[in-house]
Amino acid sequence: MTRASKSDSKPRQIKLGAFLPGGGQHIAAWRHPDAPADGATNFEFHKQLALTAERGLFDAYFLADNLTVGLGAREGGNAKIAGFEPVTLFAALAPLTTHLGFIATASTTYEEPYTLARKFASLDLLSNGRAGWNVVTSAGDETARNFNRDVQPNHAERYARAHEHVETVKALWDSWEDDAFIRDKQSGRFYDKDKLHDIDHKGEHFSVKGPLNVPRPVQGHPVVVQAGQSEDGRGLAAHSAEVIFTAHQKLETAQEFYRDIKARVAEAGRDPDQVLIMPGVAPFVGRTEEEARAKYQQLNDLILPEDGVALLNGLAGQTLDIRGYPLDGPLPPSKETEGMKSRQALIRQIADEHNFTIRQLYQWVATARGHYTIVGSVTQVADQLEEWFTSEAADGFNILPPWLPGALDDFVDLVIPELQRRGLFRTAYEGRTLRENLGLRRPENPWTVARSTVLAAE
Amino acid sequence: MTRASKSDSKPRQIKLGAFLPGGGQHIAAWRHPDAPADGATNFEFHKQLALTAERGLFDAYFLADNLTVGLGAREGGNAKIAGFEPVTLFAALAPLTTHLGFIATASTTYEEPYTLARKFASLDLLSNGRAGWNVVTSAGDETARNFNRDVQPNHAERYARAHEHVETVKALWDSWEDDAFIRDKQSGRFYDKDKLHDIDHKGEHFSVKGPLNVPRPVQGHPVVVQAGQSEDGRGLAAHSAEVIFTAHQKLETAQEFYRDIKARVAEAGRDPDQVLIMPGVAPFVGRTEEEARAKYQQLNDLILPEDGVALLNGLAGQTLDIRGYPLDGPLPPSKETEGMKSRQALIRQIADEHNFTIRQLYQWVATARGHYTIVGSVTQVADQLEEWFTSEAADGFNILPPWLPGALDDFVDLVIPELQRRGLFRTAYEGRTLRENLGLRRPENPWTVARSTVLAAE
Repeated sequence: MTRASKSDSKPRQIKLGAFLPGGGQHIAAWRHPDAPADGATNFEFHKQLALTAERGLFDAYFLADNLTVGLGAREGGNAKIAGFEPVTLFAALAPLTTHLGFIATASTTYEEPYTLARKFASLDLLSNGRAGWNVVTSAGDETARNFNRDVQPNHAERYARAHEHVETVKALWDSWEDDAFIRDKQSGRFYDKDKLHDIDHKGEHFSVKGPLNVPRPVQGHPVVVQAGQSEDGRGLAAHSAEVIFTAHQKLETAQEFYRDIKARVAEAGRDPDQVLIMPGVAPFVGRTEEEARAKYQQLNDLILPEDGVALLNGLAGQTLDIRGYPLDGPLPPSKETEGMKSRQALIRQIADEHNFTIRQLYQWVATARGHYTIVGSVTQVADQLEEWFTSEAADGFNILPPWLPGALDDFVDLVIPELQRRGLFRTAYEGRTLRENLGLRRPENPWTVARSTVLAAE
Repeated sequence: MTRASKSDSKPRQIKLGAFLPGGGQHIAAWRHPDAPADGATNFEFHKQLALTAERGLFDAYFLADNLTVGLGAREGGNAKIAGFEPVTLFAALAPLTTHLGFIATASTTYEEPYTLARKFASLDLLSNGRAGWNVVTSAGDETARNFNRDVQPNHAERYARAHEHVETVKALWDSWEDDAFIRDKQSGRFYDKDKLHDIDHKGEHFSVKGPLNVPRPVQGHPVVVQAGQSEDGRGLAAHSAEVIFTAHQKLETAQEFYRDIKARVAEAGRDPDQVLIMPGVAPFVGRTEEEARAKYQQLNDLILPEDGVALLNGLAGQTLDIRGYPLDGPLPPSKETEGMKSRQALIRQIADEHNFTIRQLYQWVATARGHYTIVGSVTQVADQLEEWFTSEAADGFNILPPWLPGALDDFVDLVIPELQRRGLFRTAYEGRTLRENLGLRRPENPWTVARSTVLAAE
């Protein structure tokens, strides 16, 4: 039985995010002959990517974020070392597009709820309802040292703070009721003061009076996205998230995750159909499988060994230091830390499963950092997406083109039409807001609900 | 003697900022028949304003900012109660314009240096060098209560923190040397690691390791702007600012301020010609003086008394509570506080000087909150600007059109051509960056300077 059979009128279709860091996803992407070497810091290039994603009818453009120069930076490595702050970049892209959503990553550990609520509300307003917030807790001591700390808060504390942060931000977004603004020139009444609310939040981590100085977002709330896979991460996702990005290598683990999250969402009293699970997929697509394999090989041949080592050290955080170990030998054992637990476990699992050497491992993860990599013909790629989608492993996918713009163009020009032909993907945007396109309900404002309850009782 | 006589080849010309909150400057601006009542939250309207400012060859679009619903909000008042976060808005406007600068206000009291440095560097990058940062310390307990505090830090502490904040941000902007990026596809060298620098800042208020994860801004540093007029404010301006916004009622006080700041700048070891002093001016322009007076009266007739009272209470902060006092009687006495000292003093000075009643005072400040208001024909307005500009009171002006879009259109269509005719204003942009148009030098990177000094010594 597939989930598709559950729905009533409209057939269930795949939702698609496009993960498009200007420097490309693969560690050597910037060295690809078709890629602009300065893509990471080139605004016109990001504009081109956004327009291509919109041409492909993607739901959203998605960007990760670090509050440090990040992975491999110290070793002289790759193109992700410096680039745009995601909200600023997306604000600039919004007026140049009409339907594409923009999901920006922002940190609950190092940003204040008021500031964060405000910038996402502002992005939602200027984009006419196309903003999404990917909630992260920003692991790593290197990040902490840019924010007045020597070491990061521990994993549990980061997640406790994240829970409170997200709830505070949502309350701030509800400061204004939707119909609070009167703007009657004749009487001079600009707004209805009964429809503007302090939030008076006083919690363990934050004390925020409110109200927010931006109107309630067009979408009610920008779409809340989450990607943590640890126990704490799943708890946060079940409680707060509407879209969940996740990394899986195999159908079985993806299905297990899917079942687990949908069950947790139901336990939290929420509707499982209103939480979309979107694994990452890095596709190398060819007109034939051979063509796809050639593309895959071309990119892996461009990895410098020192960049590969830096990548693994970065992903494994403090659990591992492989510098000094022979590249063609096995991975040294791990240590316990407070970093990104889920990602570290995944890297280790891949190494163990394939019995990879260090060199084999970094070549393997260079494309997609642990996300599912598909190398195949148009039919093969579409078959795999269809299988995951129809067998309770995914509600959609976050597409991570290994290099840009070529791998995005391939997906839009080759795979999208095939998915459309199969009835698995839209042929036109359903709505104007990100929420409408994702099929997510607009959240009600609790103040408005409370008022109508009182009125109904009278 | 005018400063113009000092310059060498190019005649000195007026620099112009445009202060364009979408809701208009005058407290009743949104009620003006020509103004969109929803201007404050209407992105298309802000776009129209930016295009008009660029057509008028303004140096920059400037926006103030509050981290609270702010002035008068609790009383049900004016259109400034909710709107866009300035950096997000300016990022969205940047790709729709080509030469106009964007000066956004951001707080040293409630934002972290890393986050702030990053968003302005990102705005500078995506606008090709058109960003400016107006440094504020965000007075008021209402603001503090949105950021985990019950009361604001005192005035001296806010300014001490501001000094350290600005220096930290500048150091972060210098993390990357200008030529740090190699991007050589052949060798795989993306950047020169000798040209990437930790800042290792450990001060009284901040500890920031760096480096920043955005390349050095196109302008080296976004233009640093400041507007404090208190002793602490002037100290900060003399030490850090390149453009100073200021509020004066009379030529004499403007001249006194101008002389004082230029002397402080010289004392701080900086070049006084590289610090531009730009008083605010709110112009009601008509083809005749009568027409201008009619425009002035039309707008003042739209003020609701309760909004006028809320405005005065907001501006005076905790020094004054005029609720309960008769509108046609005098202002009650003030108290000492930790708020915005300079603005409070100015309001009191205006009331005393004109012997204003409460009603007269709020009508007077409703236009421009203490900035210089000119009501006159094109010739009269141009004469006044010329007088201030040529008698060491101003290097330019921050134009505050009382309502929008009409008063901006009037200025662009009537006053700008007259200033051009007199040779006082540009007829085309001189450069592409905000810094080039303002005639401000691009700051050198101290790391690069240190290296070339070493090389020269060898």
